[in-house]
Amino acid sequence: MSRVVTFGEIMMRLNPDGYMELLQAPSLNISFAGGEANAAVSIANFGMDVDFVTKLPENVLGKRAAMELRKYGVEVNKIVYGGPRLGTYFVEKGVSQRPVKVLYDRQNSSISLAKRSDFDWEKILEGASWFHFTGITPALGGECVEICKDALKVCKKKNITVCCDINYREKLWTKEAAGKVMTELLKYVDVCLINEGQAKDVLGIHGKYEDEGTEEHRKENCRSVAEQVADRFGCKIVAATLRTSISASVNGWSGMLYTNGEAYYSADYKFEIVDRLGGGDSFAGALIYSLASGYDPKKTIEFATAASCLKHTIEYDYNLSTIEDVNLLIQNGNKGFVQR
Amino acid sequence: MSRVVTFGEIMMRLNPDGYMELLQAPSLNISFAGGEANAAVSIANFGMDVDFVTKLPENVLGKRAAMELRKYGVEVNKIVYGGPRLGTYFVEKGVSQRPVKVLYDRQNSSISLAKRSDFDWEKILEGASWFHFTGITPALGGECVEICKDALKVCKKKNITVCCDINYREKLWTKEAAGKVMTELLKYVDVCLINEGQAKDVLGIHGKYEDEGTEEHRKENCRSVAEQVADRFGCKIVAATLRTSISASVNGWSGMLYTNGEAYYSADYKFEIVDRLGGGDSFAGALIYSLASGYDPKKTIEFATAASCLKHTIEYDYNLSTIEDVNLLIQNGNKGFVQR
Amino acid sequence: MSRVVTFGEIMMRLNPDGYMELLQAPSLNISFAGGEANAAVSIANFGMDVDFVTKLPENVLGKRAAMELRKYGVEVNKIVYGGPRLGTYFVEKGVSQRPVKVLYDRQNSSISLAKRSDFDWEKILEGASWFHFTGITPALGGECVEICKDALKVCKKKNITVCCDINYREKLWTKEAAGKVMTELLKYVDVCLINEGQAKDVLGIHGKYEDEGTEEHRKENCRSVAEQVADRFGCKIVAATLRTSISASVNGWSGMLYTNGEAYYSADYKFEIVDRLGGGDSFAGALIYSLASGYDPKKTIEFATAASCLKHTIEYDYNLSTIEDVNLLIQNGNKGFVQR
Amino acid sequence: MSRVVTFGEIMMRLNPDGYMELLQAPSLNISFAGGEANAAVSIANFGMDVDFVTKLPENVLGKRAAMELRKYGVEVNKIVYGGPRLGTYFVEKGVSQRPVKVLYDRQNSSISLAKRSDFDWEKILEGASWFHFTGITPALGGECVEICKDALKVCKKKNITVCCDINYREKLWTKEAAGKVMTELLKYVDVCLINEGQAKDVLGIHGKYEDEGTEEHRKENCRSVAEQVADRFGCKIVAATLRTSISASVNGWSGMLYTNGEAYYSADYKFEIVDRLGGGDSFAGALIYSLASGYDPKKTIEFATAASCLKHTIEYDYNLSTIEDVNLLIQNGNKGFVQR
Amino acid sequence: MSRVVTFGEIMMRLNPDGYMELLQAPSLNISFAGGEANAAVSIANFGMDVDFVTKLPENVLGKRAAMELRKYGVEVNKIVYGGPRLGTYFVEKGVSQRPVKVLYDRQNSSISLAKRSDFDWEKILEGASWFHFTGITPALGGECVEICKDALKVCKKKNITVCCDINYREKLWTKEAAGKVMTELLKYVDVCLINEGQAKDVLGIHGKYEDEGTEEHRKENCRSVAEQVADRFGCKIVAATLRTSISASVNGWSGMLYTNGEAYYSADYKFEIVDRLGGGDSFAGALIYSLASGYDPKKTIEFATAASCLKHTIEYDYNLSTIEDVNLLIQNGNKGFVQR
Amino acid sequence: MSRVVTFGEIMMRLNPDGYMELLQAPSLNISFAGGEANAAVSIANFGMDVDFVTKLPENVLGKRAAMELRKYGVEVNKIVYGGPRLGTYFVEKGVSQRPVKVLYDRQNSSISLAKRSDFDWEKILEGASWFHFTGITPALGGECVEICKDALKVCKKKNITVCCDINYREKLWTKEAAGKVMTELLKYVDVCLINEGQAKDVLGIHGKYEDEGTEEHRKENCRSVAEQVADRFGCKIVAATLRTSISASVNGWSGMLYTNGEAYYSADYKFEIVDRLGGGDSFAGALIYSLASGYDPKKTIEFATAASCLKHTIEYDYNLSTIEDVNLLIQNGNKGFVQR
Repeated sequence: MSRVVTFGEIMMRLNPDGYMELLQAPSLNISFAGGEANAAVSIANFGMDVDFVTKLPENVLGKRAAMELRKYGVEVNKIVYGGPRLGTYFVEKGVSQRPVKVLYDRQNSSISLAKRSDFDWEKILEGASWFHFTGITPALGGECVEICKDALKVCKKKNITVCCDINYREKLWTKEAAGKVMTELLKYVDVCLINEGQAKDVLGIHGKYEDEGTEEHRKENCRSVAEQVADRFGCKIVAATLRTSISASVNGWSGMLYTNGEAYYSADYKFEIVDRLGGGDSFAGALIYSLASGYDPKKTIEFATAASCLKHTIEYDYNLSTIEDVNLLIQNGNKGFVQR
Repeated sequence: MSRVVTFGEIMMRLNPDGYMELLQAPSLNISFAGGEANAAVSIANFGMDVDFVTKLPENVLGKRAAMELRKYGVEVNKIVYGGPRLGTYFVEKGVSQRPVKVLYDRQNSSISLAKRSDFDWEKILEGASWFHFTGITPALGGECVEICKDALKVCKKKNITVCCDINYREKLWTKEAAGKVMTELLKYVDVCLINEGQAKDVLGIHGKYEDEGTEEHRKENCRSVAEQVADRFGCKIVAATLRTSISASVNGWSGMLYTNGEAYYSADYKFEIVDRLGGGDSFAGALIYSLASGYDPKKTIEFATAASCLKHTIEYDYNLSTIEDVNLLIQNGNKGFVQR
Repeated sequence: MSRVVTFGEIMMRLNPDGYMELLQAPSLNISFAGGEANAAVSIANFGMDVDFVTKLPENVLGKRAAMELRKYGVEVNKIVYGGPRLGTYFVEKGVSQRPVKVLYDRQNSSISLAKRSDFDWEKILEGASWFHFTGITPALGGECVEICKDALKVCKKKNITVCCDINYREKLWTKEAAGKVMTELLKYVDVCLINEGQAKDVLGIHGKYEDEGTEEHRKENCRSVAEQVADRFGCKIVAATLRTSISASVNGWSGMLYTNGEAYYSADYKFEIVDRLGGGDSFAGALIYSLASGYDPKKTIEFATAASCLKHTIEYDYNLSTIEDVNLLIQNGNKGFVQR
Repeated sequence: MSRVVTFGEIMMRLNPDGYMELLQAPSLNISFAGGEANAAVSIANFGMDVDFVTKLPENVLGKRAAMELRKYGVEVNKIVYGGPRLGTYFVEKGVSQRPVKVLYDRQNSSISLAKRSDFDWEKILEGASWFHFTGITPALGGECVEICKDALKVCKKKNITVCCDINYREKLWTKEAAGKVMTELLKYVDVCLINEGQAKDVLGIHGKYEDEGTEEHRKENCRSVAEQVADRFGCKIVAATLRTSISASVNGWSGMLYTNGEAYYSADYKFEIVDRLGGGDSFAGALIYSLASGYDPKKTIEFATAASCLKHTIEYDYNLSTIEDVNLLIQNGNKGFVQR
Repeated sequence: MSRVVTFGEIMMRLNPDGYMELLQAPSLNISFAGGEANAAVSIANFGMDVDFVTKLPENVLGKRAAMELRKYGVEVNKIVYGGPRLGTYFVEKGVSQRPVKVLYDRQNSSISLAKRSDFDWEKILEGASWFHFTGITPALGGECVEICKDALKVCKKKNITVCCDINYREKLWTKEAAGKVMTELLKYVDVCLINEGQAKDVLGIHGKYEDEGTEEHRKENCRSVAEQVADRFGCKIVAATLRTSISASVNGWSGMLYTNGEAYYSADYKFEIVDRLGGGDSFAGALIYSLASGYDPKKTIEFATAASCLKHTIEYDYNLSTIEDVNLLIQNGNKGFVQR
Repeated sequence: MSRVVTFGEIMMRLNPDGYMELLQAPSLNISFAGGEANAAVSIANFGMDVDFVTKLPENVLGKRAAMELRKYGVEVNKIVYGGPRLGTYFVEKGVSQRPVKVLYDRQNSSISLAKRSDFDWEKILEGASWFHFTGITPALGGECVEICKDALKVCKKKNITVCCDINYREKLWTKEAAGKVMTELLKYVDVCLINEGQAKDVLGIHGKYEDEGTEEHRKENCRSVAEQVADRFGCKIVAATLRTSISASVNGWSGMLYTNGEAYYSADYKFEIVDRLGGGDSFAGALIYSLASGYDPKKTIEFATAASCLKHTIEYDYNLSTIEDVNLLIQNGNKGFVQR
């Protein structure tokens, strides 16, 4: 099977037990996460070869970040070491009317201060058939936009399929800055993950209906945005998840994949949330796995949506559900029977 | 902004992790709580000056009770030290059909054995503009009724606004005893928190409808009780929360404020519960903050109800949600979006 | 009150905290459980004398298994010691679309390798009025079928009421093997717990309706299966629980008791699940308690169903709810009010 | 083997993890302990039949106290229920120069308020051959002195061997009060545990040497005190432990048994301490076991001292070491080899 | 009693439970610490008024840092808010041959980027009689040297006693940079804490003996260094601790105070270590308390040394031992007796 | 650098927190360990390529065992999957007079039931320069002896250096069985780890002195045994550790390496123990690293002994200390200074 290279930031995630707030918590649970790292773990978990590329500080935290990825089967020997620190973020879980709160302490991380010369993309991408990154990486500042471009140019040369999850983060850059950079980078992208809000914010692309009152309008908007993105940037595939935030505890969830002028919708899910971080990344990871496995568009979107549905029931950012778990959910909408 | 003095008992609260029962639990989590202490933390949390007055034993537990209040910004330098022990209570969380269970071990606590001479109210209330207590304090026994009266008389003299949450506890005294004492104390009260059940039990005041089958009847009863309380005792404001116990896991919640012959109702909330203890106290705290801030009746009841809604999603008795959190909920009924 | 003897396997149960997966968990919580042991704890908890009989290894884990039963009031002095090991099982909690997963490591446990000569049933059953076992015990292999038969024959001789929960486990034996053995053992059984699926799998008994689309059909099928079991094997009482798996987090639950040609149905419950393992065993335990207490059929099925409803809100396999808890639920469908 | 009845108070013990102070600790570990209860667990642990008699409140904490004793094999069916509360104590571990700190909250416990009529000693002591109590029990106040006397008189009548550990606690009563009561009770005592300090404080009995500078003087003082106690009260056996507090982390430890005019000394131990509470009680428990087993004086004091040495390496108050563990230590002074 | 103002950085400290390494730990315990903050807690703990001044980010971590200080009685209302982040450090405990490891992530903390205009020293130092800082604060970079000077000049003007703990940290600046800055700042210092190594590194001041083989030489060197510092900078008091690192688990410890040409030495301690971080800071805090209390030099050095001895037995950086604890240790070299 | 292949069993290790016994513990910490796996982690940790080969069950526990090795840098892609179960063992830490207790539940593990055909040694050993196993592996039963021989023969053919740690375990096989098998296997061994006790038990080889009273005698015996082993089996290198069990808390430790007729002794260490399991395995791992790095005999034994000294201060079986940690200890006998 084909090999995927993912590139971005991995951070230490620290969160209290259960629903404790940061003001009260006596301790914090440790995990390591980041958009592309989360996707990489999903991909490895489904059995594909996958590399995570980043720059980590040469200290025990940088070492552990790599070790945790390796634990979950991600290849880490292309990671570059150096720079001042590992980005960190703090999470308070949400419940009911209380939102999830994420506090980032990621400035001046080693990857955000990395140099173009740190990454020899010709060598890193040797033998790869997929490259995945998100809109967070170019937003990290410093030379990160240029580093992304360096990678994408080599991808083009080597005929590597490029997947990009737009993932606009307003804390990291303005809509204008994002728009300018992503417009340029999207030219290299074959598979684009983008939802309606991001399309509007970053690319100024709007859906057909102003009013999203109905599910039907929402799905049509999602399709229409995908069509415009595909047309404007020449992406072969555009995909999106549709999240309905009923509360911080319960969400609706479905997916759409647009290709060759056709939109494919997944089944609708509604779930109780254990941990919603990494939900979108698990969708990206499962999408790449499905496409690389040659699934047809319908099967692809069903698999990616079901996989990311299960992610929401799993602690921390990584999706640990197996291919069997996902298929079981697709087949019988798993009713919670005990698996002995 | 004005300063609030609160008076009552603070206890050590001990509860197992998660949904463990006391019969099984290997350990107990420590927090410190009590009706007025919980309200005091809410008030401090919203940025007002607030004192908590009580009597604590001169040992490490009494010291820690004060330290925890101070941590959350409550002034504790008017606390009196002495007496035998700190009251304690044990909590088992409820879920679904299983009720929350609270086991009190509060007899012979230092505050319940306090003397009138322990408290120099002239000095304690110096510079205060609000005084808050609940019906639990006079129920503690010993000289507590007299101590409350001493405080209330000084309040009257100093023109301090008095707020009282009726909070009838049948384990502490009979309806008759409560009725007799509260009838006397209510004469000093400007802002009274009382719901229909308490009005019936303690004051013999009934709502209009015997049958509470409809939400409309329930709300009208709530108003009608408030009107009678306001009329009989001359309270300027009477407020109440309306809880609908769907199960131990899910409750409905709304608030009503009655003033100048008019009833104001908040929005209706329905929430999954993390910890319901302190829910009413957070309503009292937020009400005092709103009134002291000069909010109009409608804004007051919306703020107090939304604040106490959020409390139910927070571990332990204290409401740690900020003014921003509360306003966000009021404005967009916070749908659980991630706050990054 | 009468004394119950239960016979079967008790295992060490190890599960991560909360919703952690076995792949992530840093530690495992210890409890001890097994179909008949769980029922025994329920019975002891309701105040009856009850023995648990098994074979445990002579090591610290076997010792602790007995100690935990003794903690909950089960008499353990008839347990036989020897053999290689204690069976173990690992549990991952389910939530929403993610199922509960149970991984057994029970092969070659001391009880599964026990000999007929290990148990002197004449002596063990001295003074007993009830004997309880499940279909798991004969499925353990070795001489377990014969040991069960030995016990049942003595029961017959001593006029001891025999209760059997069919509890078919496909990981332990085939439908054919189970059918052959259980057909023989059921001749000795007075009170049989069996649901429609088990009746079909093990005994080839089918309900009236192929289609279970309606609740009505489902309940009728349950009754019809019970009638056939009663008729074929001469059981005086046949009982069953009807679980509706809405998700791994929420289930519907009710019970049926069939006796003397009449079916009695309990109230319907719907609950959020804390831990669903041991749910059926708590039904069996409460059923035996109710019958031994001389409750009429309707009261029996209400008690057993309400008790097992509460079990689902309690951590680990044992039902710790008291007679008062159960009766309170039956009486007012406990709405989650705080019990102070 | 003979049956032992023990009588006294059992409390809930709450202590932080590791070396945390009560001011800092987020949670407290639960165990249940008391002088006689600890001894009872030791006795049960060595395989003898033993009853613990007390009065417990009829709530979940009282229920659990009994359950924990039952877990460790102590018979609890003679416990009386009623009264207001379970005594509680809080422990901070000591280390190096920092002392162990114990904070008691035991006033008004159910046992301290028990009535003479609560205990039918004729029935309780039926079939017993040993009775054990400590000087803490008569110090609890109320009718406790009288209750002890009631028990002792029945012991005398039934020819039951009485063991008493003087265990003077200055927080509970004065030296004078203790002296008066214990002088009276000691007339009934066959086996007395008393060290030099207690003998001086309670009975005004002094050792030979004022100066305890040498180990030799200390041991001789111990013997001389025992001789005087034996002579004055007619105790057949007097025993004591000699603790050398090098620091809160390391102690020296040995034992002496005096009988028939002869003193027998155990080996000397020096140990790192995991938990020193219950050390003396484990000596008492092991002493009773040894004597009841017919060990000669030398073997008795070696066994009791080695057992209580091991106790100091075990968490909480109970000694969980087995007869094999103790004998192994006696035989080869166990050098910490791994037991596989 | 007089009021102390302390100024410096407070960080979030994160460390695994027990002796776990950062590579293995599933979670990290939270505390908040820093040289001057630790001293401030000691001072508050002994009952003096004390302010901690710093700059904290306006987020939940900055808020909690202040809350934790307030919990322990430190006044925090002069703290300035703003800037990017809270400094963080990670700790692995040492044991035996394995050293304590501290990993700092403190660059770009709010205090290190603070501006001179952030602090109005005239106002901050109003009513203060002591000012305390360490050599870490000027080493933080940016305008921190100037801010220190600003503060010191106001101290001089207001006749405030200035205490400085040299505390040279080679990770923060070079010996040369430190030497230059500290030489200038020491002119304002009345009470200087400096040991031989720091004197050599920062000030180029050497003790008399090259060879420190004997304890006597070491103590004389300590005195000789103090004398030179006092002479060169006009410090009224120079004090130092003498640590002997036997292993990461056991240290020797004593103190020396030099004033008016005379050196005073404390008793020698040897202790098992629970947590050695904050040891020196607790010495500084206790020294200020002793001097402000008017203790004579001998009593001062005994108190400060005993207090800091006890700190090593307490988890995290703060010394929680009370005046009573310290005096008890001084008086009887506390032998680890249980305090009940 | 060269690649090492290790072969053996990896088990799930479960142990209570701190010093809790299995009878008391509410939870168990999870790690994964085994003689060769522990050595493999040491080797990977020092930066060499290393494979661990075994047979694991195809379930979540087998999957996690491999994941944990991969986390620490061990290559696991040659592991064979299948068979019934993962071996498990339970550990109670020792302290002072209380020994470490290990309870194995490893019978019928997948590796113990593995078949010769499971392992294609030609392929597994491709490119390897070292092979390491212990005497535990052939003791597992079934075809394990034959599988070892298969591997060793291929090693010989491929000129791979073979290292064997005798590690005799009396619970697994008799001295006679071990002697017969190991005598045969040792012919293939180049580097043999064996201490005097094992030499006597397994090979009937005795040291010079019967009496080991002096350290000198003990070291000479160690050398003499090594000489005999080298002579009889043609091992190029024989090495051993000398442990002095002062107590379960404190041990003495040194190492000896014998080669070319010469014995080289390491420095002597004495340490407080955090976790002594894996101590010998860390010696083996560090020895292989040193030899493969071309260290001379003296440097080799110093490195291996210092590395395994540090292991005793680290939780669980794996040695996580780095090359720098080890060299620092060798150079300055690390006195526990804080590493910042």
